[in-house]
Amino acid sequence: MRLEMQTWRKVEAYLARSKGIVVPVGSTEQHGPEGLIGTDHLCPEAIARRLGETHGILVAPTIAVGMSQFHLGFPGSLSLRPSTLMAVAQDYIASLSRTGFERIYFLNGHGGNVAPLRAAFQEFYAGLSMSGRDQDVRVRCRLKSWWELPQVDKLRRELYRDGEGFHGTPSEIAITQAAYPDAIREFDLPPPPSHGRNDLIEHSGDNYFEAADYRRRFPDGRVGSHSALARREHGERLIALAVADLADDFAAFLRMA
Amino acid sequence: MRLEMQTWRKVEAYLARSKGIVVPVGSTEQHGPEGLIGTDHLCPEAIARRLGETHGILVAPTIAVGMSQFHLGFPGSLSLRPSTLMAVAQDYIASLSRTGFERIYFLNGHGGNVAPLRAAFQEFYAGLSMSGRDQDVRVRCRLKSWWELPQVDKLRRELYRDGEGFHGTPSEIAITQAAYPDAIREFDLPPPPSHGRNDLIEHSGDNYFEAADYRRRFPDGRVGSHSALARREHGERLIALAVADLADDFAAFLRMA
Amino acid sequence: MRLEMQTWRKVEAYLARSKGIVVPVGSTEQHGPEGLIGTDHLCPEAIARRLGETHGILVAPTIAVGMSQFHLGFPGSLSLRPSTLMAVAQDYIASLSRTGFERIYFLNGHGGNVAPLRAAFQEFYAGLSMSGRDQDVRVRCRLKSWWELPQVDKLRRELYRDGEGFHGTPSEIAITQAAYPDAIREFDLPPPPSHGRNDLIEHSGDNYFEAADYRRRFPDGRVGSHSALARREHGERLIALAVADLADDFAAFLRMA
Amino acid sequence: MRLEMQTWRKVEAYLARSKGIVVPVGSTEQHGPEGLIGTDHLCPEAIARRLGETHGILVAPTIAVGMSQFHLGFPGSLSLRPSTLMAVAQDYIASLSRTGFERIYFLNGHGGNVAPLRAAFQEFYAGLSMSGRDQDVRVRCRLKSWWELPQVDKLRRELYRDGEGFHGTPSEIAITQAAYPDAIREFDLPPPPSHGRNDLIEHSGDNYFEAADYRRRFPDGRVGSHSALARREHGERLIALAVADLADDFAAFLRMA
Amino acid sequence: MRLEMQTWRKVEAYLARSKGIVVPVGSTEQHGPEGLIGTDHLCPEAIARRLGETHGILVAPTIAVGMSQFHLGFPGSLSLRPSTLMAVAQDYIASLSRTGFERIYFLNGHGGNVAPLRAAFQEFYAGLSMSGRDQDVRVRCRLKSWWELPQVDKLRRELYRDGEGFHGTPSEIAITQAAYPDAIREFDLPPPPSHGRNDLIEHSGDNYFEAADYRRRFPDGRVGSHSALARREHGERLIALAVADLADDFAAFLRMA
Amino acid sequence: MRLEMQTWRKVEAYLARSKGIVVPVGSTEQHGPEGLIGTDHLCPEAIARRLGETHGILVAPTIAVGMSQFHLGFPGSLSLRPSTLMAVAQDYIASLSRTGFERIYFLNGHGGNVAPLRAAFQEFYAGLSMSGRDQDVRVRCRLKSWWELPQVDKLRRELYRDGEGFHGTPSEIAITQAAYPDAIREFDLPPPPSHGRNDLIEHSGDNYFEAADYRRRFPDGRVGSHSALARREHGERLIALAVADLADDFAAFLRMA
Repeated sequence: MRLEMQTWRKVEAYLARSKGIVVPVGSTEQHGPEGLIGTDHLCPEAIARRLGETHGILVAPTIAVGMSQFHLGFPGSLSLRPSTLMAVAQDYIASLSRTGFERIYFLNGHGGNVAPLRAAFQEFYAGLSMSGRDQDVRVRCRLKSWWELPQVDKLRRELYRDGEGFHGTPSEIAITQAAYPDAIREFDLPPPPSHGRNDLIEHSGDNYFEAADYRRRFPDGRVGSHSALARREHGERLIALAVADLADDFAAFLRMA
Repeated sequence: MRLEMQTWRKVEAYLARSKGIVVPVGSTEQHGPEGLIGTDHLCPEAIARRLGETHGILVAPTIAVGMSQFHLGFPGSLSLRPSTLMAVAQDYIASLSRTGFERIYFLNGHGGNVAPLRAAFQEFYAGLSMSGRDQDVRVRCRLKSWWELPQVDKLRRELYRDGEGFHGTPSEIAITQAAYPDAIREFDLPPPPSHGRNDLIEHSGDNYFEAADYRRRFPDGRVGSHSALARREHGERLIALAVADLADDFAAFLRMA
Repeated sequence: MRLEMQTWRKVEAYLARSKGIVVPVGSTEQHGPEGLIGTDHLCPEAIARRLGETHGILVAPTIAVGMSQFHLGFPGSLSLRPSTLMAVAQDYIASLSRTGFERIYFLNGHGGNVAPLRAAFQEFYAGLSMSGRDQDVRVRCRLKSWWELPQVDKLRRELYRDGEGFHGTPSEIAITQAAYPDAIREFDLPPPPSHGRNDLIEHSGDNYFEAADYRRRFPDGRVGSHSALARREHGERLIALAVADLADDFAAFLRMA
Repeated sequence: MRLEMQTWRKVEAYLARSKGIVVPVGSTEQHGPEGLIGTDHLCPEAIARRLGETHGILVAPTIAVGMSQFHLGFPGSLSLRPSTLMAVAQDYIASLSRTGFERIYFLNGHGGNVAPLRAAFQEFYAGLSMSGRDQDVRVRCRLKSWWELPQVDKLRRELYRDGEGFHGTPSEIAITQAAYPDAIREFDLPPPPSHGRNDLIEHSGDNYFEAADYRRRFPDGRVGSHSALARREHGERLIALAVADLADDFAAFLRMA
Repeated sequence: MRLEMQTWRKVEAYLARSKGIVVPVGSTEQHGPEGLIGTDHLCPEAIARRLGETHGILVAPTIAVGMSQFHLGFPGSLSLRPSTLMAVAQDYIASLSRTGFERIYFLNGHGGNVAPLRAAFQEFYAGLSMSGRDQDVRVRCRLKSWWELPQVDKLRRELYRDGEGFHGTPSEIAITQAAYPDAIREFDLPPPPSHGRNDLIEHSGDNYFEAADYRRRFPDGRVGSHSALARREHGERLIALAVADLADDFAAFLRMA
Repeated sequence: MRLEMQTWRKVEAYLARSKGIVVPVGSTEQHGPEGLIGTDHLCPEAIARRLGETHGILVAPTIAVGMSQFHLGFPGSLSLRPSTLMAVAQDYIASLSRTGFERIYFLNGHGGNVAPLRAAFQEFYAGLSMSGRDQDVRVRCRLKSWWELPQVDKLRRELYRDGEGFHGTPSEIAITQAAYPDAIREFDLPPPPSHGRNDLIEHSGDNYFEAADYRRRFPDGRVGSHSALARREHGERLIALAVADLADDFAAFLRMA
């Protein structure tokens, strides 16, 4: 149930039975020598749309470009400033709230988005709390990255162990292989350049500096990930588990006070 | 050639032969009782991707949510503030410019985006001109709405005459029927409520006021458009003509000084 | 009836009979070798003030500096960033709305202002629509450039044909000759450098890039305009027609729902 | 020498002999029962233009609307937010600096502008100092309110003593009577409502609160000023002294390191 | 009564008897060869906390970094942009207002903060006045710099005459010697480089330009101040007088309408 | 070595041997019935200053007010908007970078600050990466919350187990008891209202909604924390371990490439 494929009358009918919606959010950035530039938005989009089809849940258009400033040393990477991503998320929340939604679930596919999105939620609420207009608010936001979903997290660790790494991970690559088999096949590629694990953790998530620094540290773009371990079949399993976990978490979100 | 389906190494190779890219930009908003909420981003996306495939031109991820504040009286509509859309467009431009692109062609599908996008281009250039850093700039931006492409404009007028109207137009509906036949079929619907043509022009493009006003004036969402005139076969012809016109315009854009 | 020449008690009395006001908006930028730097704000100011005197309509202080970043390669040009012009227009609208005005008519004299002003109107309405405070809004904004007024548009085409061009136009020069005969007389000047018409259209309106580029393309500042065709007597006729058209359009604006 | 009445070639010639320019800045707000709404911008404009004519100094278009939020309880008042006025001033500075000016003298006519304008200067310099681009800056800004000019300050105190007050002052009214005799004549009006002097000082300059509070405290708009003491002949003397003082101060400004 | 040392229940009880709070605000910047970098926030903090203890008045956490861009040529100086300081002050005001405070007294220790803080107050009120939400506002803000307090001003002039100067003043140094005797003792230092008094006034308060310019003009950081005249005993007297004056002014502030 | 207690000449000397500085950052917000409102900034401040004294490391003035919008339902809480906190952190970084620092270590004491601070770092770097000025950047930022320091984390879990909870934790209370024994003693208080652990996690860190919602869910302010378990002696141990861990982490930070 992609929102963009509905009519406003169908959305009106949907709202009569549910106030919840899923918003996939990711990025458009290098994913190593063989990974798709869209990996980080294609993964949550594939999972959310599968959920939408199987569970009758509305899915908003994907926020396809995220906060990826540290990847701009590689051609094809796009980035929003954190403040821009915050503005986009705030506008999604305000629009959806204005038209009747009360549970907005951001399914994320990129570590660099986490801080700006959490800050955006708080900026939205601060606008209400600091002006004393926070008495009758009903809109609730949740942010979850697909790799945090418990069954997904367990499987990716089992499948790839240390090869999972932090960027260009075999799990995300596998999901794109499953969702877009024409765009990306299984491939050979040497393991990533060796870094100590602590050094990798130091520079994972959103703990990166400017783009030139990233490219010097990680010349082929990967951060400790052995992307070539990815298999399309893994991707199918990961998507299925993600949908199952997500369905549970979304249901709990709808029920929350 | 969707950017998100490339690797960074393929983009590096592309840049060695072309500095141009197409960015589809549209909106997510009500399109009358039967039109898809995503119509305004699905149309330029379909055209741009067809061009990408047939002409080997890179196409960036679609900006799927635009400036649609006046549609927020209808469920399922999303909007960015004009200032947010400006920030998004500026970040696309800065990112693409940073990684080597020099010709950025925004193919637009929503009238309400025109002002913010033009303002965004000027804000980007003003940042350079007003600080004296404008001597060696090479990035050039162009904005075109698909219905302005000359053969498209001619055909849609021939096919629908006054029934084309301004919102929920049969031409845009037809394109979605051609591009997404599973999502939207041909349908029956009465002509739109009668307004004088001058009154419609008064309230077309981005000349709308707040959302509540729009809904009062245009209760089913359409602005003078007889959406039911749309035929899938029209959509195929419109897309083909749009791709032909766009290919010419994009080539001229690459050649410009 | 210049607002700045009233007392607050006179404005209070005016509001008892009309909720409308005209805001002239233009720019301060080079206008070719012989055109006045203030041309783009002096023209709408002259027209609006003439209307004010003859029709008893209130006219706000002119926004004399607009979005002219592309003219900054020429001494004497000033520019606001688009975002600054948006803020100024939003503050005019909010202030006027706060004190009882409901119809705010921006009479524009500069193409580069159109996008920021339209975006400003939408930003103002978005602030209401996206927070659900749009139910009882009464303020309406209209933007019209003086050369769009129908009789004016017809006359300038008759008088100058292709010599009208796009910047430093004989029609705008003529208006300044009529309104400020001590500041600018009729003059001789060669025709503008020859550009193909398509190339000119490409670079007209607000389709300009950074300031250094503009100066390279248009070394004496004009864009296809044969400024020397201007005659003071033309200016008198243009002003008179503009006032007549504007009076009609303003009256229609006051009547609109 | 109004900038708007020059051509760019004349400004180019001017810059060869002087890098200085005067920018009048004021406001558009109630000035008591008989004072002109434009008083605060008409005064510095009249003084600056007189200086321009007599001393061959370039004068930029007046910033006619300033920071007057506390006057919005009276019809006809307009206000920029402080942040908007800051953006406008920063854009003036950046534009003038970009095209060769190095001494920018803001002649002010409204107390509420002082804080935003000083903050704007510092914001401009902070942009340079905080990014390490402050080594070769040559642009210098000065802010002076016309009533601070020493001979003017002396005369207004002599003429009006306690009747001068803080808003709708006889000195500013007298200047408008001299500069715009058709718009405002000498008039009768009772003295302002009595407040203790300390209470007036408490609420003078920009020490006002929200608009509703101002109107409650100062019901006819004046703040301790006996506007009816104004005489056109006073205004002539005040203008002449202001021009003399301003010429000296501007010359010193041009000479400063 | 430092706010940070209370519990929320104690603050609740305090609000039942008083709606007032003091906010110390200063800066972190060079203060000449021997002055403490924190001088400008340590002074108002010491005074405010002494007041808090002796008079049972609540004191908020100090805003320790202010608008000091012109000092950034010296190691250890920090600065907020004026716009950032405005945002901080607005958030203090909104938060305190939200939780029941109605009289917010900013005790300032740095000249460069005055313009941004006054602008911040007006930005706060403008948000209410320009949207018509200004009818029931109760929060009142006051800004006072400690050296303006009448007895303090008198004593510092008596003690130091021309040696007081404008930056690194003996009075502020003396206060730090009294409040933090372990951090700064009495010291020897030659008088400041000689500047004409007019030249100093020209460059005092917030009338400074970019950081590199300041360091060229004032190589050891002082602006006309003979810092070595400071004595700890002077500081004790200055603090005592400041507390007395401040107590009076705060009481008047609480009583004001 | 508090920065505010140095002179600029001492900082110049310090920079000759180290480019690193610690910035304590926290909040000012309710901490349950008995916890100090300043707990979240007093803790990192106490730890950082102890480190500064024992290891000769420079410590900047504490950012004492953070992102606490969800606590505004309790008197005495202050909050910056996330965007304001971002601006403050960016200005710290720019200032310190401008004057020679290259390693800026933010020691945090409040969960709600994490997202805005991470977003601020990225906004700072994005400004460089997106404009192509990222080739020679040397400044590196690190964010660590004191409870993440490994020995601290181990001890607090051992001491309090489930009683540690999420807000008004005994560990933070104990640190304030050790650092400010006059301000807060050991106290009795019932365990916090019972919530399921999952429900608490749901609403911990920065996963809170508007202020009114927080107060409804957590009526006395604590989130699952048995504050009364705190002992001053625990605080001494926690501070000592924190200093030891922090010294190691800071040293590693200075060494990093």
